[in-house]
Amino acid sequence: MSELRVGIVGVGVMGADHAERVARKTSGARLVAVSDPDGERAERVAARLGARAIGDPLELIAAADVDAVILASPGFVHAEQLFACLEHGKPVLCEKPLTMDAESALRVVEAEHKLGRQLIQVGFMRRFDPEYAALKRLLDSGELGRTLVLHNVHRNKTVPATFRSEMIVRDSMVHEVDVARWLFDDEITRITVRTPKPTGLVGEGVLDPQLALFELAGGAMADVEVFVNFQVGYEVRCEAVAERGSATIGLGTGVVTRAGATCGTAIPADFRVRFEQAYDIEVQRWVDATVRGELDGPTAWDGYAAAAVCEAGLESLATGQPVEVALADRSAILG
Amino acid sequence: MSELRVGIVGVGVMGADHAERVARKTSGARLVAVSDPDGERAERVAARLGARAIGDPLELIAAADVDAVILASPGFVHAEQLFACLEHGKPVLCEKPLTMDAESALRVVEAEHKLGRQLIQVGFMRRFDPEYAALKRLLDSGELGRTLVLHNVHRNKTVPATFRSEMIVRDSMVHEVDVARWLFDDEITRITVRTPKPTGLVGEGVLDPQLALFELAGGAMADVEVFVNFQVGYEVRCEAVAERGSATIGLGTGVVTRAGATCGTAIPADFRVRFEQAYDIEVQRWVDATVRGELDGPTAWDGYAAAAVCEAGLESLATGQPVEVALADRSAILG
Amino acid sequence: MSELRVGIVGVGVMGADHAERVARKTSGARLVAVSDPDGERAERVAARLGARAIGDPLELIAAADVDAVILASPGFVHAEQLFACLEHGKPVLCEKPLTMDAESALRVVEAEHKLGRQLIQVGFMRRFDPEYAALKRLLDSGELGRTLVLHNVHRNKTVPATFRSEMIVRDSMVHEVDVARWLFDDEITRITVRTPKPTGLVGEGVLDPQLALFELAGGAMADVEVFVNFQVGYEVRCEAVAERGSATIGLGTGVVTRAGATCGTAIPADFRVRFEQAYDIEVQRWVDATVRGELDGPTAWDGYAAAAVCEAGLESLATGQPVEVALADRSAILG
Amino acid sequence: MSELRVGIVGVGVMGADHAERVARKTSGARLVAVSDPDGERAERVAARLGARAIGDPLELIAAADVDAVILASPGFVHAEQLFACLEHGKPVLCEKPLTMDAESALRVVEAEHKLGRQLIQVGFMRRFDPEYAALKRLLDSGELGRTLVLHNVHRNKTVPATFRSEMIVRDSMVHEVDVARWLFDDEITRITVRTPKPTGLVGEGVLDPQLALFELAGGAMADVEVFVNFQVGYEVRCEAVAERGSATIGLGTGVVTRAGATCGTAIPADFRVRFEQAYDIEVQRWVDATVRGELDGPTAWDGYAAAAVCEAGLESLATGQPVEVALADRSAILG
Repeated sequence: MSELRVGIVGVGVMGADHAERVARKTSGARLVAVSDPDGERAERVAARLGARAIGDPLELIAAADVDAVILASPGFVHAEQLFACLEHGKPVLCEKPLTMDAESALRVVEAEHKLGRQLIQVGFMRRFDPEYAALKRLLDSGELGRTLVLHNVHRNKTVPATFRSEMIVRDSMVHEVDVARWLFDDEITRITVRTPKPTGLVGEGVLDPQLALFELAGGAMADVEVFVNFQVGYEVRCEAVAERGSATIGLGTGVVTRAGATCGTAIPADFRVRFEQAYDIEVQRWVDATVRGELDGPTAWDGYAAAAVCEAGLESLATGQPVEVALADRSAILG
Repeated sequence: MSELRVGIVGVGVMGADHAERVARKTSGARLVAVSDPDGERAERVAARLGARAIGDPLELIAAADVDAVILASPGFVHAEQLFACLEHGKPVLCEKPLTMDAESALRVVEAEHKLGRQLIQVGFMRRFDPEYAALKRLLDSGELGRTLVLHNVHRNKTVPATFRSEMIVRDSMVHEVDVARWLFDDEITRITVRTPKPTGLVGEGVLDPQLALFELAGGAMADVEVFVNFQVGYEVRCEAVAERGSATIGLGTGVVTRAGATCGTAIPADFRVRFEQAYDIEVQRWVDATVRGELDGPTAWDGYAAAAVCEAGLESLATGQPVEVALADRSAILG
Repeated sequence: MSELRVGIVGVGVMGADHAERVARKTSGARLVAVSDPDGERAERVAARLGARAIGDPLELIAAADVDAVILASPGFVHAEQLFACLEHGKPVLCEKPLTMDAESALRVVEAEHKLGRQLIQVGFMRRFDPEYAALKRLLDSGELGRTLVLHNVHRNKTVPATFRSEMIVRDSMVHEVDVARWLFDDEITRITVRTPKPTGLVGEGVLDPQLALFELAGGAMADVEVFVNFQVGYEVRCEAVAERGSATIGLGTGVVTRAGATCGTAIPADFRVRFEQAYDIEVQRWVDATVRGELDGPTAWDGYAAAAVCEAGLESLATGQPVEVALADRSAILG
Repeated sequence: MSELRVGIVGVGVMGADHAERVARKTSGARLVAVSDPDGERAERVAARLGARAIGDPLELIAAADVDAVILASPGFVHAEQLFACLEHGKPVLCEKPLTMDAESALRVVEAEHKLGRQLIQVGFMRRFDPEYAALKRLLDSGELGRTLVLHNVHRNKTVPATFRSEMIVRDSMVHEVDVARWLFDDEITRITVRTPKPTGLVGEGVLDPQLALFELAGGAMADVEVFVNFQVGYEVRCEAVAERGSATIGLGTGVVTRAGATCGTAIPADFRVRFEQAYDIEVQRWVDATVRGELDGPTAWDGYAAAAVCEAGLESLATGQPVEVALADRSAILG
């Protein structure tokens, strides 16, 4: 299998994002089919990205030219669609939640286990965030000793009025649940959710913010603030407190480590670390533009002008004096 | 042209990176050929990435199945290779420098112009760095008024002893030259390079650090520190000072803006902005693992455990009391 | 009363600090007497600071030339000493705790109330910290809406082995208790203290760190981490989460505010704000040195040299050229 | 001399600040006299601070009960007043500039030298700023190797229209001159001032911002941006680049050090370091309030309430359960 042919079920906001991602940003994958209850929406996405629309999600899952599936459908249809994926032996990336309750989720786990092959990945994408991944590596290295406590903060600018207290647990806090399980590599055995007097900027009866305490089997704890009507913006932070220091992410500054009397961030050793993303974007955009027969970056003139300035710079380096840059007349040359 | 077939000339550190990038991280591109004076190295890279090695770079450029070329060869062979690309009408992404001096660079510009098609892009990759791009957008928005001055800092941890004073200008400062031209959208008309007493941690006779002043046609200025034996790490910073504030990048925190009595960074409005990279990586790694027949992310059990904790959380939300999480016996189920 | 004559009871670490502070850093006060169970220590401090040592603390409190008292004695003698202060009508600054338990503290409150004059101030010094004071002003301004939640962190590098779990509550968490009461201007009505599995870097049986939840009469909440063997250093943080933003102190950066899509710190409008402390220190050190017949700051030569450089600078400003600074021969003039 | 009796010449903004500082914030000093060309202003300040006004500044300098003088008068009268101080053997703290030009400044230096006693201190107050002082200590420690370059930034929000290009050098850049001389402990031998196209938010003909390059006798260099109409606020920064790292101040975060692959700030080892200023302010305000017969801090009730919460906390620590805080009825007790 040299190229993975992907079908996507559900092309609302998240699913349309994934469709774009598979079609245009992912190497070694091709988007072949999308499905959505809103048939027109599916057609539109399919047309734009060179895939076909399939009305019935189960038909998409079964399609011979679909090697693997992304489920971006609502949680309450996940169970049925996951069972279909298992039945057809299709690898599936399932947006959270796996299913709507623990009991049905357990049946999915058991069905997959019976099959003897792991086909299901759940969309807890934070594990792939470079900051979370760096935090995990740091904690696992043991450099800071055993991790004792997490302080997590999860804030949205606002949510729709339909977003009730229960959804704050199910749709937002669930990410913190996975983060705690993953970072501690342990199960949560007890949870307490407490609610201070709510913000006035929320519908009647919605308990926002919420404070939760997770207790893990090994004795570690995590406290969590979830505040989905914070007004300011989207903010996710995690501070891990360990025996010999702490490490915080989500400040937009990589991992901030408190250790050895210093609060600090790492300076990369190498330009490839600092500019890796720039190179990736440069090459992707060069490929995209070239396929379109266009140029989308610094031109030969930019290369020439830089060379001319550097030549003058070398003369100034030798003399210590200002040197005029003798640039050719651009319009004479390029018209 | 649905997929761009790319050939790479030069697979040293930079070129090998690009080969990997084209083969494994870029959507819509395929690596078909590589060339290198070190034939064995070329063979190794080619074998690993499913391409073929071609001894003669000009042959690679001419090859019928090479749609486009990346030049990661030494600067002194660029001119010849660029002319070959122009001759064969091949789009080319040329690592800086374009050529070794202004005179030959100008001939390249003229030859491309004569051809009537822009085929050459120069590898000033900073323009694609998300921080630089955000800075450019901010300055171009006019929000801070006209930009007056840039303060740029460019530091490497160390460089080899062969990296002489002139290379500091040609290979390092050249990036700052492009940044100044690009951010001001103007030409540099005068340059002064001054050298303080050098660091002792450098070979005899190497003038490091260097301070440069760029003066632009429109009257703006940029001062630059280049220090390639800084010992600490790789650090590139740029502060743009405008009429109504300043903006700094390279602190690892996105754009730090000083405006309206505040020094601040932006908080994203949306989780997709904050976690876009996480989603990209998640999907790319899911595709890669799936092609290998593996799973490389949160499992169905993780989905189940999160559901079980959330169920307990909902009960705690309702009662305010701690609630035990009743998790199935993992080993009984998964063996 | 033009100058306050102060007596200090207890000149251990904290009391000796206060003695120095009153004698040398406080305007309008004079240290007249100190007392300590360790008589030699009292003599030493008294001799160094021009005060006299008094063996019996109650005698110090009663002394005619002591206008006001600072209690830096152990908590278990506070009650008796506070009653003595009330009896003699002496204003007293009492280091926390007021007394060892709520019952005796209440008797002190009642006794002071019966007297009809407020004489007792408790040493919750954080209320005077510029960062806390700025946070309080911001929250009270209502700019961020109603304050909903505090997240507080209180960490010590290490504490002696004698510092048991109870002292973590009494001596460390007590500061967070006052901070929460003060910032919310409300009483705490309920407290929960939970202990994760302790750090291994602490004596057997000591529960460190501790997580506490304070619930206030008005429905607000504060969660607190106290960790007195953090190994890294002393760190106290407070994040106040309000309806329209949050504000954090203790990062060593003043108040960090998240509001209006920005995470930022204030830039002072004026040099007097930025350098107020510098001016205070300058003048205090000039006074101290002058009294000793010495000079402890920039000299007339420094003033001359600056003038000479500025003169050259003005010439350069006019010409745009480098200008040599013609400085007189220092050794010829000053020998 | 147990208490220094200070006279102040000039009680405009700066001088009035100093008068307040000497009278109310400085230990061991007393303000006895002030002088100002605006006699009413002098009377007002004198009356408020318990000093007397003297019309003639030279009379103030000569007054028998004036032990030492602060000159906050305009620069062009400094020379005459400094000579008077020397004549009467009075120590003097002279706001910068020492005098208006290098020639007259040199005569002051010579006159003081002839006297055989150092009486003159110049008001370069940055040397007393805790951040600058910490930077100086770090550089002098040699920990980062030899210092190679300074990057200084000096910005004001705005200045009056009367603040011309020359004043930017004389009144603003002069601070950077002293900082460079002091940090390098060396003389500046050459200066270049360059002016980019000025901001539009400044009067016709004013060259703002300005970029200066200082070259020091030992070969080090400092570049400086002075921008006195920055619109944002007052900002002074200094980055020292040394052989093994750099250190920056003026970010409002203490010294930010780049060394050993980390960009970091120091975490204090001790609460006294973190809260020293809080203790100073606490005691100063307690003294001030006590002299007025008032209380200006946490009350006995605050001490009682904290004790009650801690008692409940100890119970919760023992049980792990929430504990209600049984607080006495405040109004019943305090009325």
